[in-house]
Amino acid sequence: MAEWGERLAGVRGVLLDISGVLYDGDAGGGTPISGSVEAVARLKRSHLKVRFCTNESQKSRGKLVGRLRQLGFDICEEEVTAPAPAACQILKEQGLRPHLLIHDEVRSEFDQIDTSNPNCVVIGDAGEAFSYQNMNKAFQVLMELEKPVLISLGRGRYYKETSGLMLDVGGYMKALEYACGIKAEVVGKPSPEFFKSALRAIGVEAPQAR
Amino acid sequence: MAEWGERLAGVRGVLLDISGVLYDGDAGGGTPISGSVEAVARLKRSHLKVRFCTNESQKSRGKLVGRLRQLGFDICEEEVTAPAPAACQILKEQGLRPHLLIHDEVRSEFDQIDTSNPNCVVIGDAGEAFSYQNMNKAFQVLMELEKPVLISLGRGRYYKETSGLMLDVGGYMKALEYACGIKAEVVGKPSPEFFKSALRAIGVEAPQAR
Repeated sequence: MAEWGERLAGVRGVLLDISGVLYDGDAGGGTPISGSVEAVARLKRSHLKVRFCTNESQKSRGKLVGRLRQLGFDICEEEVTAPAPAACQILKEQGLRPHLLIHDEVRSEFDQIDTSNPNCVVIGDAGEAFSYQNMNKAFQVLMELEKPVLISLGRGRYYKETSGLMLDVGGYMKALEYACGIKAEVVGKPSPEFFKSALRAIGVEAPQAR
Repeated sequence: MAEWGERLAGVRGVLLDISGVLYDGDAGGGTPISGSVEAVARLKRSHLKVRFCTNESQKSRGKLVGRLRQLGFDICEEEVTAPAPAACQILKEQGLRPHLLIHDEVRSEFDQIDTSNPNCVVIGDAGEAFSYQNMNKAFQVLMELEKPVLISLGRGRYYKETSGLMLDVGGYMKALEYACGIKAEVVGKPSPEFFKSALRAIGVEAPQAR
Protein backbone atom coordinates (compact mmCIF):
# COMPACT_ATOMS: atom_id res chain seq x y z
CA MET A 1 0.00 0.00 0.00
CA ALA A 2 2.92 2.30 0.76
CA GLU A 3 4.04 1.78 -2.80
CA TRP A 4 0.63 2.86 -4.12
CA GLY A 5 0.69 5.81 -1.75
CA GLU A 6 3.96 6.95 -3.35
CA ARG A 7 2.70 6.40 -6.86
CA LEU A 8 -0.39 8.44 -6.13
CA ALA A 9 1.44 11.32 -4.42
CA GLY A 10 0.07 14.57 -5.85
CA VAL A 11 -2.62 12.80 -7.84
CA ARG A 12 -6.06 14.35 -7.59
CA GLY A 13 -7.97 12.70 -10.38
CA VAL A 14 -8.22 9.52 -12.44
CA LEU A 15 -9.41 9.05 -16.01
CA LEU A 16 -10.80 5.58 -16.66
CA ASP A 17 -11.31 3.98 -20.03
CA ILE A 18 -14.42 1.81 -20.36
CA SER A 19 -14.29 -0.75 -23.20
CA GLY A 20 -11.54 -3.31 -22.58
CA VAL A 21 -10.79 -1.77 -19.17
CA LEU A 22 -14.05 -1.91 -17.22
CA TYR A 23 -15.80 -4.44 -19.45
CA ASP A 24 -15.61 -6.41 -22.67
CA GLY A 25 -18.59 -5.68 -24.88
CA ASP A 26 -20.53 -8.18 -26.94
CA ALA A 27 -23.90 -8.47 -28.60
CA GLY A 28 -25.49 -9.67 -25.36
CA GLY A 29 -24.40 -6.67 -23.30
CA GLY A 30 -20.87 -7.47 -22.24
CA THR A 31 -19.04 -8.82 -19.20
CA PRO A 32 -17.23 -6.86 -16.48
CA ILE A 33 -13.48 -7.38 -16.39
CA SER A 34 -12.52 -9.10 -13.17
CA GLY A 35 -12.14 -6.66 -10.25
CA SER A 36 -13.27 -3.59 -12.19
CA VAL A 37 -16.66 -3.08 -10.48
CA GLU A 38 -14.96 -3.04 -7.07
CA ALA A 39 -12.08 -0.88 -8.34
CA VAL A 40 -14.51 1.82 -9.50
CA ALA A 41 -16.36 1.62 -6.18
CA ARG A 42 -13.08 2.05 -4.24
CA LEU A 43 -12.00 5.01 -6.38
CA LYS A 44 -15.37 6.65 -5.75
CA ARG A 45 -14.93 6.13 -1.98
CA SER A 46 -11.42 7.67 -2.14
CA HIS A 47 -10.47 11.36 -2.26
CA LEU A 48 -9.77 11.06 -6.01
CA LYS A 49 -11.98 12.59 -8.65
CA VAL A 50 -13.06 10.09 -11.29
CA ARG A 51 -13.96 10.65 -14.94
CA PHE A 52 -14.80 8.00 -17.51
CA CYS A 53 -13.18 8.73 -20.84
CA THR A 54 -14.23 6.49 -23.71
CA ASN A 55 -14.03 6.30 -27.49
CA GLU A 56 -17.30 4.37 -27.51
CA SER A 57 -19.24 5.50 -30.55
CA GLN A 58 -21.61 2.57 -30.97
CA LYS A 59 -23.91 3.72 -28.20
CA SER A 60 -25.20 6.96 -26.73
CA ARG A 61 -23.87 7.78 -23.27
CA GLY A 62 -27.33 7.00 -21.88
CA LYS A 63 -27.31 3.48 -23.29
CA LEU A 64 -23.69 2.87 -22.35
CA VAL A 65 -24.24 3.97 -18.75
CA GLY A 66 -27.47 1.98 -18.48
CA ARG A 67 -25.60 -1.14 -19.51
CA LEU A 68 -22.71 -0.50 -17.13
CA ARG A 69 -25.08 0.09 -14.23
CA GLN A 70 -26.76 -3.23 -14.99
CA LEU A 71 -23.31 -4.83 -14.73
CA GLY A 72 -22.90 -3.29 -11.25
CA PHE A 73 -20.81 -0.19 -11.97
CA ASP A 74 -21.33 3.01 -10.00
CA ILE A 75 -21.46 5.44 -12.94
CA CYS A 76 -23.79 8.12 -14.25
CA GLU A 77 -24.10 9.82 -17.65
CA GLU A 78 -22.65 13.13 -16.47
CA GLU A 79 -19.37 11.42 -15.55
CA VAL A 80 -18.66 10.26 -19.11
CA THR A 81 -16.54 12.05 -21.73
CA ALA A 82 -17.30 10.54 -25.16
CA PRO A 83 -16.57 11.52 -28.78
CA ALA A 84 -20.15 12.09 -29.98
CA PRO A 85 -21.00 14.95 -27.58
CA ALA A 86 -17.51 16.40 -28.10
CA ALA A 87 -18.12 16.34 -31.86
CA CYS A 88 -21.51 18.04 -31.40
CA GLN A 89 -19.78 20.90 -29.65
CA ILE A 90 -17.32 21.31 -32.56
CA LEU A 91 -20.16 21.13 -35.10
CA LYS A 92 -22.05 23.90 -33.30
CA GLU A 93 -18.97 26.08 -32.84
CA GLN A 94 -17.99 25.80 -36.50
CA GLY A 95 -21.47 25.95 -38.05
CA LEU A 96 -21.08 22.48 -39.53
CA ARG A 97 -24.03 20.38 -40.69
CA PRO A 98 -22.94 16.74 -40.78
CA HIS A 99 -23.78 13.83 -42.96
CA LEU A 100 -23.70 11.09 -40.29
CA LEU A 101 -22.10 7.70 -40.91
CA ILE A 102 -22.64 6.35 -37.42
CA HIS A 103 -24.23 3.52 -35.49
CA ASP A 104 -27.99 3.84 -35.01
CA GLU A 105 -27.53 3.49 -31.25
CA VAL A 106 -25.51 6.71 -31.06
CA ARG A 107 -27.75 8.76 -33.34
CA SER A 108 -29.71 10.29 -30.43
CA GLU A 109 -26.56 12.20 -29.38
CA PHE A 110 -27.00 14.24 -32.58
CA ASP A 111 -30.69 15.02 -32.07
CA GLN A 112 -30.01 18.73 -31.64
CA ILE A 113 -27.76 19.00 -34.70
CA ASP A 114 -28.91 20.35 -38.07
CA THR A 115 -28.12 17.69 -40.68
CA SER A 116 -29.78 19.37 -43.66
CA ASN A 117 -27.67 20.21 -46.70
CA PRO A 118 -24.49 18.69 -45.19
CA ASN A 119 -21.15 20.51 -45.31
CA CYS A 120 -19.11 17.84 -43.52
CA VAL A 121 -19.10 14.12 -42.68
CA VAL A 122 -18.99 12.63 -39.19
CA ILE A 123 -17.88 9.00 -39.05
CA GLY A 124 -18.14 6.78 -35.99
CA ASP A 125 -17.81 3.10 -35.26
CA ALA A 126 -20.83 2.24 -37.40
CA GLY A 127 -20.42 -1.55 -37.29
CA GLU A 128 -22.74 -3.27 -39.74
CA ALA A 129 -23.75 0.16 -41.09
CA PHE A 130 -20.30 0.32 -42.77
CA SER A 131 -21.87 -1.02 -45.97
CA TYR A 132 -20.39 -0.16 -49.36
CA GLN A 133 -23.45 1.95 -50.10
CA ASN A 134 -23.11 3.99 -46.88
CA MET A 135 -19.36 4.44 -47.30
CA ASN A 136 -19.85 5.51 -50.91
CA LYS A 137 -22.52 8.03 -49.89
CA ALA A 138 -20.16 9.58 -47.30
CA PHE A 139 -17.42 9.65 -49.95
CA GLN A 140 -19.69 11.35 -52.48
CA VAL A 141 -20.77 13.99 -49.93
CA LEU A 142 -17.11 14.78 -49.21
CA MET A 143 -16.16 14.92 -52.90
CA GLU A 144 -18.95 17.39 -53.62
CA LEU A 145 -17.66 19.85 -50.99
CA GLU A 146 -15.29 22.58 -52.01
CA LYS A 147 -13.37 22.05 -48.76
CA PRO A 148 -14.17 18.55 -47.49
CA VAL A 149 -14.30 18.20 -43.69
CA LEU A 150 -14.22 14.73 -42.16
CA ILE A 151 -14.64 14.34 -38.39
CA SER A 152 -13.86 10.92 -36.96
CA LEU A 153 -15.12 9.75 -33.56
CA GLY A 154 -11.83 8.14 -32.52
CA ARG A 155 -9.35 6.38 -34.76
CA GLY A 156 -9.23 2.92 -33.18
CA ARG A 157 -7.78 0.12 -35.28
CA TYR A 158 -9.91 -2.63 -33.75
CA TYR A 159 -11.52 -3.71 -30.53
CA LYS A 160 -12.11 -7.00 -28.85
CA GLU A 161 -15.50 -8.54 -28.38
CA THR A 162 -16.03 -11.86 -26.70
CA SER A 163 -16.57 -13.27 -30.23
CA GLY A 164 -13.23 -11.96 -31.52
CA LEU A 165 -11.49 -8.90 -32.94
CA MET A 166 -13.67 -6.32 -34.68
CA LEU A 167 -12.69 -3.54 -37.10
CA ASP A 168 -13.04 -0.12 -35.47
CA VAL A 169 -13.67 3.27 -37.09
CA GLY A 170 -9.98 4.01 -37.80
CA GLY A 171 -9.71 1.87 -40.92
CA TYR A 172 -12.84 3.41 -42.41
CA MET A 173 -11.52 6.87 -41.59
CA LYS A 174 -8.32 5.96 -43.47
CA ALA A 175 -10.36 4.70 -46.42
CA LEU A 176 -12.18 8.03 -46.78
CA GLU A 177 -8.97 10.01 -46.19
CA TYR A 178 -7.25 8.10 -48.99
CA ALA A 179 -10.16 8.16 -51.43
CA CYS A 180 -10.74 11.90 -50.96
CA GLY A 181 -7.09 12.94 -50.47
CA ILE A 182 -7.88 14.61 -47.13
CA LYS A 183 -6.96 14.33 -43.44
CA ALA A 184 -9.67 13.69 -40.83
CA GLU A 185 -10.05 15.61 -37.61
CA VAL A 186 -10.08 13.02 -34.83
CA VAL A 187 -12.38 13.67 -31.88
CA GLY A 188 -11.65 11.28 -29.03
CA LYS A 189 -8.57 9.54 -27.76
CA PRO A 190 -5.68 10.03 -28.38
CA SER A 191 -6.45 13.68 -29.17
CA PRO A 192 -4.93 15.85 -26.36
CA GLU A 193 -7.95 18.17 -26.59
CA PHE A 194 -10.23 15.28 -25.72
CA PHE A 195 -8.26 14.36 -22.58
CA LYS A 196 -8.10 18.03 -21.58
CA SER A 197 -11.89 18.36 -21.82
CA ALA A 198 -12.26 15.27 -19.58
CA LEU A 199 -9.91 16.83 -17.03
CA ARG A 200 -11.68 20.20 -17.19
CA ALA A 201 -14.91 18.40 -16.31
CA ILE A 202 -13.40 17.30 -12.97
CA GLY A 203 -11.30 20.41 -12.42
CA VAL A 204 -7.98 18.58 -12.43
CA GLU A 205 -4.75 19.59 -14.18
CA ALA A 206 -2.93 17.08 -16.38
CA PRO A 207 0.06 16.58 -13.99
CA GLN A 208 -2.38 15.73 -11.19
CA ALA A 209 -4.15 13.02 -13.19
CA ARG A 210 -3.62 9.35 -13.92
CA MET B 1 -0.11 14.18 -89.09
CA ALA B 2 3.59 15.04 -89.35
CA GLU B 3 3.44 16.03 -85.72
CA TRP B 4 2.04 12.62 -84.77
CA GLY B 5 4.70 10.99 -86.92
CA GLU B 6 7.38 12.74 -84.88
CA ARG B 7 5.77 11.87 -81.57
CA LEU B 8 5.58 8.22 -82.56
CA ALA B 9 9.15 7.98 -83.84
CA GLY B 10 10.69 4.82 -82.40
CA VAL B 11 7.41 3.70 -80.86
CA ARG B 12 6.60 0.03 -81.44
CA GLY B 13 3.78 -0.61 -79.02
CA VAL B 14 0.88 1.03 -77.17
CA LEU B 15 -0.63 0.16 -73.80
CA LEU B 16 -4.28 1.16 -73.54
CA ASP B 17 -6.27 1.54 -70.36
CA ILE B 18 -9.91 0.42 -70.54
CA SER B 19 -12.19 1.96 -67.86
CA GLY B 20 -12.46 5.71 -68.30
CA VAL B 21 -10.37 5.56 -71.51
CA LEU B 22 -12.22 3.20 -73.84
CA TYR B 23 -15.55 3.24 -72.00
CA ASP B 24 -17.38 4.42 -68.90
CA GLY B 25 -18.89 1.51 -67.03
CA ASP B 26 -22.28 1.41 -65.38
CA ALA B 27 -24.77 -1.16 -64.15
CA GLY B 28 -26.26 -1.50 -67.63
CA GLY B 29 -22.99 -2.37 -69.37
CA GLY B 30 -21.35 0.97 -70.05
CA THR B 31 -20.92 3.41 -72.91
CA PRO B 32 -17.94 3.80 -75.26
CA ILE B 33 -16.08 7.07 -74.91
CA SER B 34 -16.44 9.07 -78.09
CA GLY B 35 -13.97 8.05 -80.80
CA SER B 36 -12.46 5.16 -78.82
CA VAL B 37 -13.90 2.29 -80.89
CA GLU B 38 -12.42 3.80 -84.07
CA ALA B 39 -9.13 4.64 -82.31
CA VAL B 40 -8.63 1.00 -81.31
CA ALA B 41 -9.51 -0.12 -84.84
CA ARG B 42 -6.96 2.31 -86.33
CA LEU B 43 -4.23 1.20 -83.90
CA LYS B 44 -4.90 -2.41 -84.85
CA ARG B 45 -4.57 -1.52 -88.55
CA SER B 46 -1.27 0.27 -87.88
CA HIS B 47 2.19 -1.27 -87.43
CA LEU B 48 1.92 -0.75 -83.65
CA LYS B 49 1.48 -3.59 -81.18
CA VAL B 50 -1.47 -3.06 -78.88
CA ARG B 51 -2.01 -4.35 -75.33
CA PHE B 52 -4.92 -3.52 -73.05
CA CYS B 53 -3.76 -2.90 -69.51
CA THR B 54 -6.51 -2.51 -66.93
CA ASN B 55 -7.02 -2.48 -63.17
CA GLU B 56 -10.53 -3.82 -63.66
CA SER B 57 -11.19 -6.25 -60.82
CA GLN B 58 -14.99 -6.31 -60.87
CA LYS B 59 -15.15 -8.65 -63.85
CA SER B 60 -13.20 -11.57 -65.26
CA ARG B 61 -11.32 -10.85 -68.47
CA GLY B 62 -13.86 -13.00 -70.30
CA LYS B 63 -16.78 -10.90 -69.12
CA LEU B 64 -14.95 -7.62 -69.66
CA VAL B 65 -13.97 -8.51 -73.21
CA GLY B 66 -17.47 -9.80 -73.98
CA ARG B 67 -18.93 -6.48 -72.93
CA LEU B 68 -16.35 -4.46 -74.90
CA ARG B 69 -16.98 -6.52 -78.03
CA GLN B 70 -20.70 -5.84 -77.67
CA LEU B 71 -19.84 -2.14 -77.61
CA GLY B 72 -17.96 -2.55 -80.90
CA PHE B 73 -14.34 -2.85 -79.76
CA ASP B 74 -11.91 -5.12 -81.59
CA ILE B 75 -10.44 -6.89 -78.55
CA CYS B 76 -9.89 -10.45 -77.35
CA GLU B 77 -9.17 -11.94 -73.93
CA GLU B 78 -5.54 -12.79 -74.72
CA GLU B 79 -4.79 -9.10 -75.35
CA VAL B 80 -5.70 -8.03 -71.81
CA THR B 81 -3.33 -7.63 -68.84
CA ALA B 82 -5.40 -7.50 -65.62
CA PRO B 83 -4.62 -7.74 -61.90
CA ALA B 84 -6.49 -10.98 -61.12
CA PRO B 85 -4.50 -13.26 -63.42
CA ALA B 86 -1.29 -11.46 -62.40
CA ALA B 87 -2.16 -12.13 -58.74
CA CYS B 88 -2.84 -15.80 -59.51
CA GLN B 89 0.68 -16.11 -60.85
CA ILE B 90 2.13 -14.62 -57.66
CA LEU B 91 -0.05 -16.88 -55.49
CA LYS B 92 1.19 -19.95 -57.35
CA GLU B 93 4.84 -18.86 -57.30
CA GLN B 94 4.77 -18.13 -53.57
CA GLY B 95 2.59 -21.05 -52.45
CA LEU B 96 -0.08 -18.70 -51.14
CA ARG B 97 -3.67 -19.79 -50.48
CA PRO B 98 -5.86 -16.70 -50.48
CA HIS B 99 -8.95 -15.69 -48.60
CA LEU B 100 -10.71 -13.77 -51.38
CA LEU B 101 -12.47 -10.46 -50.78
CA ILE B 102 -13.44 -9.85 -54.39
CA HIS B 103 -16.38 -9.22 -56.67
CA ASP B 104 -18.35 -12.35 -57.58
CA GLU B 105 -17.89 -11.54 -61.27
CA VAL B 106 -14.09 -11.93 -61.03
CA ARG B 107 -14.15 -15.09 -58.90
CA SER B 108 -13.78 -17.38 -61.94
CA GLU B 109 -10.24 -16.03 -62.48
CA PHE B 110 -9.28 -17.83 -59.25
CA ASP B 111 -10.86 -21.19 -60.17
CA GLN B 112 -7.49 -22.92 -60.29
CA ILE B 113 -6.28 -21.50 -56.96
CA ASP B 114 -6.33 -23.43 -53.68
CA THR B 115 -8.26 -21.34 -51.16
CA SER B 116 -8.32 -23.87 -48.32
CA ASN B 117 -6.76 -22.91 -44.98
CA PRO B 118 -5.82 -19.38 -46.19
CA ASN B 119 -2.38 -17.90 -45.54
CA CYS B 120 -3.02 -14.52 -47.21
CA VAL B 121 -5.83 -12.18 -48.27
CA VAL B 122 -6.51 -10.96 -51.81
CA ILE B 123 -8.65 -7.84 -52.03
CA GLY B 124 -10.19 -6.48 -55.23
CA ASP B 125 -12.78 -3.91 -56.14
CA ALA B 126 -15.55 -5.89 -54.43
CA GLY B 127 -18.25 -3.21 -54.71
CA GLU B 128 -21.33 -4.14 -52.68
CA ALA B 129 -19.41 -7.12 -51.26
CA PHE B 130 -17.41 -4.62 -49.16
CA SER B 131 -19.81 -5.23 -46.26
CA TYR B 132 -18.65 -4.79 -42.68
CA GLN B 133 -18.94 -8.53 -42.20
CA ASN B 134 -16.74 -9.33 -45.22
CA MET B 135 -14.17 -6.69 -44.30
CA ASN B 136 -14.06 -7.96 -40.73
CA LYS B 137 -13.57 -11.54 -41.91
CA ALA B 138 -10.61 -10.49 -44.10
CA PHE B 139 -9.22 -8.53 -41.13
CA GLN B 140 -9.57 -11.52 -38.81
CA VAL B 141 -7.85 -13.85 -41.31
CA LEU B 142 -4.91 -11.42 -41.52
CA MET B 143 -4.67 -10.99 -37.74
CA GLU B 144 -4.52 -14.74 -37.23
CA LEU B 145 -1.50 -15.10 -39.52
CA GLU B 146 1.97 -14.99 -38.07
CA LYS B 147 3.12 -12.98 -41.08
CA PRO B 148 0.04 -11.33 -42.64
CA VAL B 149 0.16 -10.99 -46.44
CA LEU B 150 -2.33 -8.69 -48.16
CA ILE B 151 -2.43 -8.56 -51.96
CA SER B 152 -4.47 -5.75 -53.49
CA LEU B 153 -5.74 -5.79 -57.08
CA GLY B 154 -4.85 -2.16 -57.81
CA ARG B 155 -5.00 0.72 -55.38
CA GLY B 156 -7.46 3.04 -57.14
CA ARG B 157 -9.05 5.79 -55.04
CA TYR B 158 -12.29 5.90 -57.00
CA TYR B 159 -13.72 5.51 -60.45
CA LYS B 160 -16.47 7.16 -62.38
CA GLU B 161 -19.68 5.48 -63.35
CA THR B 162 -22.39 7.21 -65.28
CA SER B 163 -24.26 7.45 -61.95
CA GLY B 164 -21.35 9.20 -60.18
CA LEU B 165 -18.07 8.57 -58.38
CA MET B 166 -17.58 5.17 -56.76
CA LEU B 167 -15.11 4.07 -54.07
CA ASP B 168 -12.43 1.80 -55.51
CA VAL B 169 -10.36 -0.88 -53.80
CA GLY B 170 -7.62 1.51 -52.59
CA GLY B 171 -9.53 2.85 -49.58
CA TYR B 172 -10.41 -0.64 -48.42
CA MET B 173 -6.79 -1.69 -48.86
CA LYS B 174 -5.78 1.27 -46.65
CA ALA B 175 -8.39 0.27 -44.06
CA LEU B 176 -6.92 -3.22 -43.74
CA GLU B 177 -3.34 -1.90 -43.80
CA TYR B 178 -4.14 0.46 -40.93
CA ALA B 179 -6.16 -2.01 -38.85
CA CYS B 180 -3.52 -4.75 -39.18
CA GLY B 181 -0.44 -2.51 -39.16
CA ILE B 182 0.81 -3.94 -42.46
CA LYS B 183 1.60 -2.84 -46.02
CA ALA B 184 -0.22 -4.40 -48.96
CA GLU B 185 1.45 -5.69 -52.10
CA VAL B 186 -0.26 -3.95 -55.01
CA VAL B 187 -0.78 -5.98 -58.19
CA GLY B 188 -1.86 -3.75 -61.05
CA LYS B 189 -1.19 -0.18 -62.06
CA PRO B 190 0.88 1.74 -61.05
CA SER B 191 3.19 -1.16 -60.16
CA PRO B 192 6.14 -1.13 -62.61
CA GLU B 193 6.12 -4.94 -62.61
CA PHE B 194 2.55 -4.90 -63.94
CA PHE B 195 3.41 -2.60 -66.86
CA LYS B 196 6.51 -4.68 -67.60
CA SER B 197 4.44 -7.87 -67.80
CA ALA B 198 2.07 -6.14 -70.25
CA LEU B 199 5.04 -5.09 -72.41
CA ARG B 200 6.58 -8.57 -72.25
CA ALA B 201 3.31 -9.94 -73.64
CA ILE B 202 3.77 -7.88 -76.83
CA GLY B 203 7.59 -8.14 -76.93
CA VAL B 204 8.14 -4.38 -76.63
CA GLU B 205 10.69 -2.58 -74.43
CA ALA B 206 9.56 0.28 -72.20
CA PRO B 207 11.28 3.08 -74.23
CA GLN B 208 9.46 1.84 -77.34
CA ALA B 209 6.02 2.01 -75.75
CA ARG B 210 3.38 4.66 -75.16
